[in-house]
Amino acid sequence: MIIDPWGSLELSDYEKLFKEFGLERFSTKFNLKHRFFDRNIVIAHRDFQKVFIRIKRKKPFINITGIASSGPLHLGHKTIIDFFILFKKLGGKNYFGIANIDGYVSRPKIKDMENANLWAIENLAHALALGLDKKDIFIQSKQNQRYYTFTFEISKKITENVFKSAYGHLDLGKVSANLLQYADILHPQLKEYEGEMPSITVIGLEQDPHAKLTRDIARRLPYPMELPSFIYTKHQSGLQKGTKMSSSEPDTAILLSDKPAEVSRKIARSFTGGKDTIEQQKKLGGNPDICKVYELFKYHHEDDKVVERVYTKCKKGKLLCGECKQLCVNFLNKFLKSHQKKLQKTQKIAERLIKTL
Amino acid sequence: MIIDPWGSLELSDYEKLFKEFGLERFSTKFNLKHRFFDRNIVIAHRDFQKVFIRIKRKKPFINITGIASSGPLHLGHKTIIDFFILFKKLGGKNYFGIANIDGYVSRPKIKDMENANLWAIENLAHALALGLDKKDIFIQSKQNQRYYTFTFEISKKITENVFKSAYGHLDLGKVSANLLQYADILHPQLKEYEGEMPSITVIGLEQDPHAKLTRDIARRLPYPMELPSFIYTKHQSGLQKGTKMSSSEPDTAILLSDKPAEVSRKIARSFTGGKDTIEQQKKLGGNPDICKVYELFKYHHEDDKVVERVYTKCKKGKLLCGECKQLCVNFLNKFLKSHQKKLQKTQKIAERLIKTL
Repeated sequence: MIIDPWGSLELSDYEKLFKEFGLERFSTKFNLKHRFFDRNIVIAHRDFQKVFIRIKRKKPFINITGIASSGPLHLGHKTIIDFFILFKKLGGKNYFGIANIDGYVSRPKIKDMENANLWAIENLAHALALGLDKKDIFIQSKQNQRYYTFTFEISKKITENVFKSAYGHLDLGKVSANLLQYADILHPQLKEYEGEMPSITVIGLEQDPHAKLTRDIARRLPYPMELPSFIYTKHQSGLQKGTKMSSSEPDTAILLSDKPAEVSRKIARSFTGGKDTIEQQKKLGGNPDICKVYELFKYHHEDDKVVERVYTKCKKGKLLCGECKQLCVNFLNKFLKSHQKKLQKTQKIAERLIKTL
Repeated sequence: MIIDPWGSLELSDYEKLFKEFGLERFSTKFNLKHRFFDRNIVIAHRDFQKVFIRIKRKKPFINITGIASSGPLHLGHKTIIDFFILFKKLGGKNYFGIANIDGYVSRPKIKDMENANLWAIENLAHALALGLDKKDIFIQSKQNQRYYTFTFEISKKITENVFKSAYGHLDLGKVSANLLQYADILHPQLKEYEGEMPSITVIGLEQDPHAKLTRDIARRLPYPMELPSFIYTKHQSGLQKGTKMSSSEPDTAILLSDKPAEVSRKIARSFTGGKDTIEQQKKLGGNPDICKVYELFKYHHEDDKVVERVYTKCKKGKLLCGECKQLCVNFLNKFLKSHQKKLQKTQKIAERLIKTL
């Protein structure tokens, strides 16, 4: 089975994938107190042990992730950024990639670099507003020469067949995008950057072909490198049944740029675990485990008590969908209002960072 | 028929190729006085007319070529550099590429970038000694960010199938090397460099798949670009019968680093157009048209009279191979002595240019 990293299938059969791809279940021995771990949003890892040891011993490790500049950021991206901030707080050397070249070369809808750069500014402004610092960021089109040379060097370490068997195709733009992604993850270990050091990257499960290939490449490069570690998250799903949260289909996603009325509208239309009638629901309770509104609380509300209360009251039929949706709208709009206020400042910083050649 | 740009076949059937690939025979209307044109070393072109008009009108044009850093330079490379200097004198905006990333990613024998950089220093030192200036040079690993972004952008403009039909394979290292080559030829036309402008690149006929693809890419990029023009030269052949001059087989080539004794030895072993016995040769004359020693004069001796005299006297049986070889050794060693003296200075400049990160 090939996992298509550009696909948008909703993965449900995780156990099978663990077995098939050699992932390790995320263990409670990694006692990192955070909602992502406590709430089973993290589902698996490769080689996280060595990063965990570094965290416990207060030794440095590389914290590296990236977002392709190809559309507006939504709450799914916020999760990735929140993870990054978590590892930043835990002592990481931070490399948050604004993947604007990747955004252009891998997406048909992005027609030129100028278009990718507009999204790069949008994405960067949000990332800064969410708590990243200028010095945590790298921009693919604004790297130093060593990074680019390294990206090309990597191409010598993958065969056509390995690439095809990992991805099932060989689109040359996507080959470039992948080379850049491997370089993004591995370049912090070059001697010109941090040197050999464990690294952590948080990705969705469908990105595992990238992860495995990146580790294979690290083995074959003529530089001393720790194999990079990965944490796999359950993707936040889309607001409609059976969808993935995706900027390409705005109604599946709460965008970080959404205004209060849009949030209300989108939540009103969300799929819930409610029953057909109010009476039935009062009697039998709702099903938060399949509810998109509950999922929003679960991924984003920092207070465990609030999340548990929503869950329990729903199950017992004491919190009906209308009221619950209103709570969720209030929560999201409060967060978005505060977030968007910060954008006024970070937007200008982002423009300056991307535009200067 | 596919021409393999990395192959080393000796092409003999040029006419067929003209027809098959739509090349234009180089016309005498391009009255550029130089041994390369007068002696039929140039055999064909694509779209040279527009560069020629620029030269005649003393308007700028781009003069772009490059050498992959994968071995020592020989007299065949000198021809390419001499061409570059010719177009420099004719008013070109000069871009001479030290293709060190290309050298590493496309050649199995180059094991790491450090190795490619050693050849880059060697090649650059010779190029400077032959008359290039520091400001005529660009080094692939030391370009600015725009160049690299542009290289990746190009990957979006070629399909797997186009690439395969041009080259017959899809080695990912060579894909990278090709992307860099397209970028080398086209990047001077970006607005951040010279802007839209005719360009000229001198290549061997077996490089034509690159040329055609580069022109196709120029058509598809979201930037205004003149289609690049190309001049095709007959490759200087190797010193042994049926060989190409190649650094991988040192006895086929006079290296720019060869010492007098090596030159004597190599010329002594060269294939000539001589007859089996001195008597026969005196009676019937030699055949300079197949003679590797004559070819050295033809490609490199600047004095038409000397070259014609060698040709005529050989034909008439008045210049025997032994004497002719001695003339050639003297000519080459005089040139190499003077050239290698300049290296003492240019070697240091080259090291500085390549090594500083």
